[in-house]
Parts: sequence; structure tokens; C-alpha cells
Amino acid sequence: MKRITFLLVVVATLAGVFADMGPASGQSDKQAVPAFVTTIPPGYRDWRLISVAHEAGNLNSLGAVLGNDVAIKAYREGTLPFPDGTIIAALHYRHAPSEENDRIFGRPQSFVPGPATNIQFMVKDSTKYAATGGWGFGHFQYGKPADATFMKPCFPCHAQEKAHDLVFTRYAP
Amino acid sequence: MKRITFLLVVVATLAGVFADMGPASGQSDKQAVPAFVTTIPPGYRDWRLISVAHEAGNLNSLGAVLGNDVAIKAYREGTLPFPDGTIIAALHYRHAPSEENDRIFGRPQSFVPGPATNIQFMVKDSTKYAATGGWGFGHFQYGKPADATFMKPCFPCHAQEKAHDLVFTRYAP
Repeated sequence: MKRITFLLVVVATLAGVFADMGPASGQSDKQAVPAFVTTIPPGYRDWRLISVAHEAGNLNSLGAVLGNDVAIKAYREGTLPFPDGTIIAALHYRHAPSEENDRIFGRPQSFVPGPATNIQFMVKDSTKYAATGGWGFGHFQYGKPADATFMKPCFPCHAQEKAHDLVFTRYAP
Repeated sequence: MKRITFLLVVVATLAGVFADMGPASGQSDKQAVPAFVTTIPPGYRDWRLISVAHEAGNLNSLGAVLGNDVAIKAYREGTLPFPDGTIIAALHYRHAPSEENDRIFGRPQSFVPGPATNIQFMVKDSTKYAATGGWGFGHFQYGKPADATFMKPCFPCHAQEKAHDLVFTRYAP
């Protein structure tokens, strides 16, 4: 018995599913613990562009939003809600002035990606992430996922974008 | 003879090579007319991300910089100068506040792509574009290329980025 438990722990750890078990963990729907994305989807840096974004204020970020093939197809065809399998990646960098560009342009105007700050994902799986509108939210800093407390505000904020299936970003032509 | 001239004019117009003839037009190197990119490289919207950019001031633009496979490989491997076949695309949009996002976030902070303003290209062909450092520059608005007068400042400005083979944009990880 001890050996089986150990094996289960190993398997669960390897799969990174601890924070990711959600409603499937045997709890009732009422007590559903939100599932988050705890592993970085492979190959995301090769995905195609959905759009770009600049968040001023405290966030002070410059970002690129990329989508896997399912996401790009849904965006281009205007499919809502996004189908299962959609993954959207937001690559965030510090919004940094470029002294080099400004010197050549002769005026302060140019902002470029500074150090990478975080990468966020939205993964559509209407079964696994049923408790959060079918979307699994992920936030990674230096390759490590944020904890459940950090992730708690993602869903209620995105839920306000119900008309666009909880996704803020629109497709840039 | 008249007929041949007419045919040549038709062919040249169809190919859109008037502004693109460069040194190959029979002039000596000293009088070389810079060649510009006058046709939009096909498929550029499916290319992978190099970086993002925000130009404040008069430009007021938010942009995505994409690269074809040759460009992405060169960037990732740090190859300089960029090899022939490299194409870099800069998709520019107006840097527009998002009222919708700001309302949900509870503060003015969010800037997204407004209307597309222009698309620019840098095409590396060390023979065709020998007069401008091996790079052909292109600027398109509503699908139409800018004229030679508009394009004139591209090369002297980019030439100031000699240490990075005339390319301002660095790769965002």
C-alpha cells in the first residue's frame, strides 16, 4: 500500500497536476477548487501573433499575445466561444525606454521590451476547467507557476469579458 | 521600336519594378538609385514574433515585429550580418487606449492596437539592395507602397545601427 501511495505521488508530481486537479478530485461542484495551468505549454514561442499590448501604471508592461493553431483559427474565423484546445499566451516584458533608439531618432519616443516579467496562458478545456468558465489560467515567472492565492483574481476579472468568452485580447489584423 | 518600348513599360508596370530597378538599371554604381520593396511579401502575418515596440510622440504607434524563418533562425543564433533571404516585418497600429479594459481594470492603463497605420519590411538581398547596405526597405499603407521621396530617409537612419546590421529591433525572449 505504501508503495502504491509513493508511486501515485511520483506520478502526480511528474505530471504537475497537484494544483491542477480541480473538480475531478472528488469534491462536489459547490466546493470546486479552481484548476490552474501549472506547466508551460511547449512550443508557445513559435506560435503566431494575435496582438500586442501596453499596460501602463503599476504593470508598466509591453506584451505580445500569441496563439496556438486552434486559437489563431478561431480568432480569424470569429469563432466564439473558443473551442477546446485553444491556448493563448501573453508574453510580458518591462516597458523600457530605448536609449539607443532615442539617440538615433533624436528624441525620447521609443519603448522596447525590457526584461521578461511573466508569461501568462489561457487554456480552453471546458471539462477540466469547468469551474472557471472553461478556461485554465496560468502565470509563470522565471518558469515557475504562481500559487493559488495569486491566481484567484484571474477568473472573476476575466468573467467580466463574458461577451468575448472571457478573453480581453482582440485580433490585430 | 515604339511597340517594344510600350511592351517594356507594360511589363515594368505590371511587375512594379520601377522604383525597384536599382543599380541593375544600367547606371554606374556612383549614380545607383536605391531599390525599395514595392510588393508585400506573402504570408508575413503567419510569421513568428521577433519583438514588440511602442513609439510615443508623433508616431504614437504600437507594433509587432515578425520574421520569416530565415530571420528567426538568424536572430536566435545571433547571426550577423543577417543572411540573404531574411525578411523582417513591422506591423504598426495606432497606440490606442482601451476603454473596455480600463473600465474593467478600474483605471486608465490599457493600450491596444487601434487602426493599422502601416506595414514596413526589411528584405535582405546583398546584390539587389547593394546600394542600401544589402537591405531593401518597404513601407505600405492600405496595401500601397510609399514613393521614393518618402523612402529616402530609411537607409541613412538605419545605417546608424551598423553594429546590428542596420536593424533596430532585438529579439524578445
